[in-house]
Amino acid sequence: MKAEIIAVGTELLLGQIVNSNAQFLSIELAALGIDVYFQTVVGDNSIRLQEAIEIAKGRADLILFTGGIGPTEDDLTKEALAATLGRGLYIDQMAMDHVDRFFSDRGVPMTENNRKQALVIDDSAPLPNETGLAVGLAISHEGKYYVVLPGPPREMKPMFTDKAKPWLQQNALTDEMTLYSKMLKFAGIGESLLEDNLIDLIHGQNDPTIAPYAKEGEVTVRISTKAPSYSEAMLKLDALEEQIRSILPEHLYASVDVPLEKIIVDWMADAGLTVSCAESCTGGLLMGSITGIPGSSSMFMGGIVCYSNEMKQKLLNVPREYLEGPDAPGAVSREVAEVLAEQVRLTADTDFGLSITGVAGPGDSERKPAGLVYIGLAERNGKTEVFELKLKGNRENIRIRSVKAILYRLWRRLVERNIEAPPEGAGL
Amino acid sequence: MKAEIIAVGTELLLGQIVNSNAQFLSIELAALGIDVYFQTVVGDNSIRLQEAIEIAKGRADLILFTGGIGPTEDDLTKEALAATLGRGLYIDQMAMDHVDRFFSDRGVPMTENNRKQALVIDDSAPLPNETGLAVGLAISHEGKYYVVLPGPPREMKPMFTDKAKPWLQQNALTDEMTLYSKMLKFAGIGESLLEDNLIDLIHGQNDPTIAPYAKEGEVTVRISTKAPSYSEAMLKLDALEEQIRSILPEHLYASVDVPLEKIIVDWMADAGLTVSCAESCTGGLLMGSITGIPGSSSMFMGGIVCYSNEMKQKLLNVPREYLEGPDAPGAVSREVAEVLAEQVRLTADTDFGLSITGVAGPGDSERKPAGLVYIGLAERNGKTEVFELKLKGNRENIRIRSVKAILYRLWRRLVERNIEAPPEGAGL
Repeated sequence: MKAEIIAVGTELLLGQIVNSNAQFLSIELAALGIDVYFQTVVGDNSIRLQEAIEIAKGRADLILFTGGIGPTEDDLTKEALAATLGRGLYIDQMAMDHVDRFFSDRGVPMTENNRKQALVIDDSAPLPNETGLAVGLAISHEGKYYVVLPGPPREMKPMFTDKAKPWLQQNALTDEMTLYSKMLKFAGIGESLLEDNLIDLIHGQNDPTIAPYAKEGEVTVRISTKAPSYSEAMLKLDALEEQIRSILPEHLYASVDVPLEKIIVDWMADAGLTVSCAESCTGGLLMGSITGIPGSSSMFMGGIVCYSNEMKQKLLNVPREYLEGPDAPGAVSREVAEVLAEQVRLTADTDFGLSITGVAGPGDSERKPAGLVYIGLAERNGKTEVFELKLKGNRENIRIRSVKAILYRLWRRLVERNIEAPPEGAGL
Repeated sequence: MKAEIIAVGTELLLGQIVNSNAQFLSIELAALGIDVYFQTVVGDNSIRLQEAIEIAKGRADLILFTGGIGPTEDDLTKEALAATLGRGLYIDQMAMDHVDRFFSDRGVPMTENNRKQALVIDDSAPLPNETGLAVGLAISHEGKYYVVLPGPPREMKPMFTDKAKPWLQQNALTDEMTLYSKMLKFAGIGESLLEDNLIDLIHGQNDPTIAPYAKEGEVTVRISTKAPSYSEAMLKLDALEEQIRSILPEHLYASVDVPLEKIIVDWMADAGLTVSCAESCTGGLLMGSITGIPGSSSMFMGGIVCYSNEMKQKLLNVPREYLEGPDAPGAVSREVAEVLAEQVRLTADTDFGLSITGVAGPGDSERKPAGLVYIGLAERNGKTEVFELKLKGNRENIRIRSVKAILYRLWRRLVERNIEAPPEGAGL
């Protein structure tokens, strides 16, 4: 099956945003065994959009649209598609109720233009929008398939995954050999070192395929095979996973696409273990990533962002002589990372205490280079370890990598302690 | 002049990379006053690429290509363009010398396939590649313009800026006007309410144009005009900005593209004011966003993530009777938000104290609905204000919007206090 993605929005043509929707959908469609042959971007202009649809109809079996379904006058995607297909539009009652409820919940009057967000094309399947207002739709017409999704990624992604993908699987993909994949997730190792370790495996085989890629401080390896059934695919994928695990046993933390913090949250919650954090240069990012995971409240108690030296002394008992004076190790030091981890653990009375102190940049600080970071891990009745990191990149990279590094060390400690992991897939 | 950007590369269609080249070129072309009407992505396939070129020829005056000019067999862009134009190809001697020198400098033998990288189309202007090997080209053919650039951004960007842009200015843009824009940034208001307020203005004029869009909890309005000079454009843009400001004086926080936290950090650092935070449901996100801004260490002292009720009591003196018992207001309440803001301000001894406590979801908590959030703002020698939010969306949306909401309230307080803002553009 050949697909085309049409992203609608003048902001894309002006370069105000990058077309990350096309990337997301391309990855998802590849995983379904659908070949994307073209991606098109067109502005909020009905004539040019209709021209783009005509061209796509001539060269694709499945056309996915993102954007142009909001409340404003230049949101035209559904209207243009309906015109091209020669179909009508109507207000879907459930979608309208969803929009009405949004405004009445807020006690704000709904303006008339918002009714547009409940429009669907005749005889299409409405795709509810759980994270926004505009309803999407899927439709089969003269042997071709059309899926209309919102533009904002936080609305588009869940609508595709939870609504459009099942619709495609039921209506459009009934007799294709399906591509099955597993995502192997790695921490504590960079992309090139990981690839070095797997290079013989990557070159030695074509099925399953092995594709590593790096993203936001983690490395993912996608292994894929086409098969007539799930169980046949899994036989091949599981065997390859075991081979890879035997090469990198200390870094492979999951075989589903979840971030490391989710594995840790579920594991600790299940085992009844707790953690607290003291952050300096990361300023809350570590705690923000842990609390981004639903259920974290049963294992994460809280913590302290000790950005200033006064806060380090006052709330975490860092001795003044560590911080001040010509011979002091300074705020960015092994000594301070150790005190921070131990003191936050004591204050919050948790099983583990994590700390991060470093120079996030830009520019050096206290005669220490940007990218020098110390991370500490304290444990109730256990040893405190401190690790030195020398990180590359800009301020944001350094902060994110510091967070991933201490999460990796905590995960390793859980592994070493032989703490029983929750059943595979629990909470996923 | 109408332009189309054609990015060539199967890796884009697989979602392995995002099409950042199209974004870069769109911004650059807009700045030259050229309207990009379409962006197309096509794989490394000669037939489909030639089809895409035929379509683009029918709807654009200028076509820019990126990618597909390397040494491998599936690099086909120049060949496909030459075939479409009915022209021949030859090895450009300067480009060939550049490739030869690269290999001889490294003492590595040049493989034959690298000769491809010196190919240009008959009667085109070769565009030297200062940061890579493959030569680009620009050509005028039957009243249309074609520019071929490499795929890797670190080769494409300098080649466009230093070689292709001057070629376009000399050959294609002899009498165009330049497009100038301003980005107006709004906080504390949603996209549709903002548009309602500006609808008469939007409909009442064509020049400058007014384009609102929403992104991650903020709304941006781009105002643009074509003019022969910067100063003439700014006369029009400044006048429109003042009109818009008079309609929404409480929400327009900047006329450059910066996040609200940057405005606040620079303003408070300049005024010598300090802040601290107590976060419950956002778990560090607020502090993470403030400390993401370089220079935040002079105004942000630190704070406390009081995720558990014990931490709220122990570190922030929330009375037990607020948290426990059948008639207690509970952790998600006006009362607790007030105590958190005031106590963290006292603990950190800062000018302002911010607090967030709410239900981020998924699911309700303590018989309170997901999305119910209280934010508090305390001030040294000033009043403490608490605001109730009823937010929609998933856990991540609710957390991000809570952060934006308290940042907006802090910004409003700085405005109300008539604190002198740093000079326009300082620190930007």
